[in-house]
Amino acid sequence: MSKLLTDLIEALRCLPGVGGKSAQRMAFHLLERERERGLRLASALEQAMQRIGNCTRCRNFSEEPVCSICASSSRDRHVLCVVESPTELAAIEQATGYRGQYFVLLGRLSPLDGLGPEELGLGLLTERLAEGEIEEMIIATNPTVEGEATAHYLAQLARAAGVKPTRLAHGVPLGGELEYVDRGTLAHAFGSRQSL
Amino acid sequence: MSKLLTDLIEALRCLPGVGGKSAQRMAFHLLERERERGLRLASALEQAMQRIGNCTRCRNFSEEPVCSICASSSRDRHVLCVVESPTELAAIEQATGYRGQYFVLLGRLSPLDGLGPEELGLGLLTERLAEGEIEEMIIATNPTVEGEATAHYLAQLARAAGVKPTRLAHGVPLGGELEYVDRGTLAHAFGSRQSL
Ligand SMILES: [Zn+2]
Ligand SMILES: [Zn+2]
Repeated sequence: MSKLLTDLIEALRCLPGVGGKSAQRMAFHLLERERERGLRLASALEQAMQRIGNCTRCRNFSEEPVCSICASSSRDRHVLCVVESPTELAAIEQATGYRGQYFVLLGRLSPLDGLGPEELGLGLLTERLAEGEIEEMIIATNPTVEGEATAHYLAQLARAAGVKPTRLAHGVPLGGELEYVDRGTLAHAFGSRQSL
Repeated sequence: MSKLLTDLIEALRCLPGVGGKSAQRMAFHLLERERERGLRLASALEQAMQRIGNCTRCRNFSEEPVCSICASSSRDRHVLCVVESPTELAAIEQATGYRGQYFVLLGRLSPLDGLGPEELGLGLLTERLAEGEIEEMIIATNPTVEGEATAHYLAQLARAAGVKPTRLAHGVPLGGELEYVDRGTLAHAFGSRQSL
């Protein structure tokens, strides 16, 4: 098989859920029928990998210094939802009618992995709470052991700043990841979030 | 959501079997954890889409004028296997012990789609048969209506050139596509190919 083709098949395996056989099918499909779209994908990948950074205010993915949610004048400035990752932010945006602000931890407290308050940007979060606009902090970390420990730590931070911490309602399956929860369950859990 | 991220998710949908939800999961996965591999994929895609052409001798995918199979001195020069597409050539290479030559039609006879003998490179194939080295032509077009019509036409070409045409044995499910046949079945059908 041609070297460039072998390289392409190998490279496609970086995609989650794509094994050798799917990768080969994808490569042949693009070469036989979709070269223009294949080139557009190459360009979109390059641009995204190189230019998407993190919002300086909420740490969500953004190619601008401040993301569109933080920059929006139509979002509620009194509620802040804290999530572990941009994936989970997207899941909440798509499943719920939430119109407040976000803060993305880009991880969860995990001392063994070297993830402490500094890595999670908790200094930036503390400054944000100190601005005085936020009244409620919705803690939407995952219901895993580390996610719960992180939630506990965040609730203390909130209380220290005079902000009311809330947590998503039961409904999210224990041990599950928000990313894989169906929209209905996630929307329900979001709506019935409870005071901590 | 960031424009570059939206563009990437949309572009990923050119991959077969990838819908909106998988595309989003792929984009976030790459951005959160695999940026280097994402960039390598971008480069592999660009190189493959731009530089892979077709072998001037067999029409298989190749970035060189003559592909590695045609250029190999260790392959049997007396047997030629004709397939519809590079995908099917790859399936035969991977499933069987075949060590002869190939010819890739890049389609099948389909007058309504404007695919006639010229589009399938049958002039090139006729020249190849006229060289006099080929003794057997294995016709491995798909067992569909158009694939069978193409096989019939190819068998006549072979006979006219004094070459023995053979066809894959029963075992390939009727109406199926070679690409999706399991390896064992394909290997068996290949081994028990019959004279036409
Ligand atoms: Zn932001
Ligand atoms: Zn060749």
